[in-house]
Amino acid sequence: MMHSILLIGQSNMAGRGYASEVEPIYNDNIKVLRNGRWRPLYVPVNPDRDTAGVNLAESFADLYARDKDVTVGLIPCADGGTCLDQWQIGSLLFDHACYMAELASRTSTIAAVLWHQGESDCGEDRYPVYEQKLSVIMEAFRKKLGLYDVPFLVGGLGDYLKNYKSPVTSTNYVHINAALQHYAKANPMTGYVPADGLTSNPDNLHFSAKSLREFGVRYYEKFLELEDKNKVFTEKVSPDLAIRTELELL
Amino acid sequence: MMHSILLIGQSNMAGRGYASEVEPIYNDNIKVLRNGRWRPLYVPVNPDRDTAGVNLAESFADLYARDKDVTVGLIPCADGGTCLDQWQIGSLLFDHACYMAELASRTSTIAAVLWHQGESDCGEDRYPVYEQKLSVIMEAFRKKLGLYDVPFLVGGLGDYLKNYKSPVTSTNYVHINAALQHYAKANPMTGYVPADGLTSNPDNLHFSAKSLREFGVRYYEKFLELEDKNKVFTEKVSPDLAIRTELELL
Repeated sequence: MMHSILLIGQSNMAGRGYASEVEPIYNDNIKVLRNGRWRPLYVPVNPDRDTAGVNLAESFADLYARDKDVTVGLIPCADGGTCLDQWQIGSLLFDHACYMAELASRTSTIAAVLWHQGESDCGEDRYPVYEQKLSVIMEAFRKKLGLYDVPFLVGGLGDYLKNYKSPVTSTNYVHINAALQHYAKANPMTGYVPADGLTSNPDNLHFSAKSLREFGVRYYEKFLELEDKNKVFTEKVSPDLAIRTELELL
Repeated sequence: MMHSILLIGQSNMAGRGYASEVEPIYNDNIKVLRNGRWRPLYVPVNPDRDTAGVNLAESFADLYARDKDVTVGLIPCADGGTCLDQWQIGSLLFDHACYMAELASRTSTIAAVLWHQGESDCGEDRYPVYEQKLSVIMEAFRKKLGLYDVPFLVGGLGDYLKNYKSPVTSTNYVHINAALQHYAKANPMTGYVPADGLTSNPDNLHFSAKSLREFGVRYYEKFLELEDKNKVFTEKVSPDLAIRTELELL
């Protein structure tokens, strides 16, 4: 009875934490989706770039799996540096994420959607329309995947961005955070997860591994506030899963 | 005008070569599919496991891109340890590979399919039906993706398997090679790529990085024998590709 988690957004959802900065998470009840199938957790969860590293969903899943005593599967679809226009309905990223979620749904039930994005929408022409664009995209994910009873959690951008080298980012990220907060308040089953006090890698752009661990905990706390406690998770069996060969781990 | 290459099979197509054993390939005209979009080549091309490494498609693509002066995109869908029953029509792996190929086809034209698999079908009940099962699956890929004018290249299993710890593998891999050769001879636009003389990692199971480089060259030579020289590759533009942000590389 796998509870799966869809991960969408840009690099801070993909995860750029340095593995050497934190203890690895060992939990046999966390899986990652690879080629439509579940594999035991390994880092990077979301291999979108050669710089992919520790991801906030690791501590989220660890807490979830232990708290509810279930298996948690992560569906990694975040892509570094992408702006909302690249996530619009019918885009490569939108369609890819929907298809991965559909494949995962053959063997699991989606329990939450984690979103972190906005750094790439800090431009003067982008941030004023952020909430409007985000609402359309998230509503499309809910409709396409049947996720009206599932919490969507959107995380805030880090305050360390005020030191980022790009002036539009360091100035306007606060408007993205305001938009994310307002979007979460205005929509059911949607929560804002603050990034207050979290720190970055030396690039002043990506959350550090330690902060990603903490951020994952905050995402889970918000999840608990929003979840539908009556949601039913059924056992799903794909014929594939009955076929195992001794070489499968190699 | 991107020429794309679908990579399917088990661990020796995914690639388990040690990167430290070979020179890296630097070629701006090689891309890998990530989340439905093209990124510059990096290793591992096919991140199906934490053990994923050098892949035979790297040298194949390098030779192809330089020989034809085009951009080559790799679509990684191989999955370690999988047997043919896990690739049957409608399976998670089959459907995943078809969808990745379809997403890739929005911005490229598929030029070849590279297959390497068989180690997981060496069992006494499996190898006698290998050719029959393989034919059904490959025909389904051709039909589903419209690939009747595209070479399908199937590689032989390495002779080092005679030293592998599993008796059925060390004894029966020769029957898989015979089946692959016969399948290739019996079908149009299909070629067998011999693995004669190639060597393995210390596990006697996975091709070494050096041998994968050589194997990729052999795949390309077989591709040249089979390709339809009149095949048309058109420029395809996704609306996505026009959108770029400065953060996209991060």
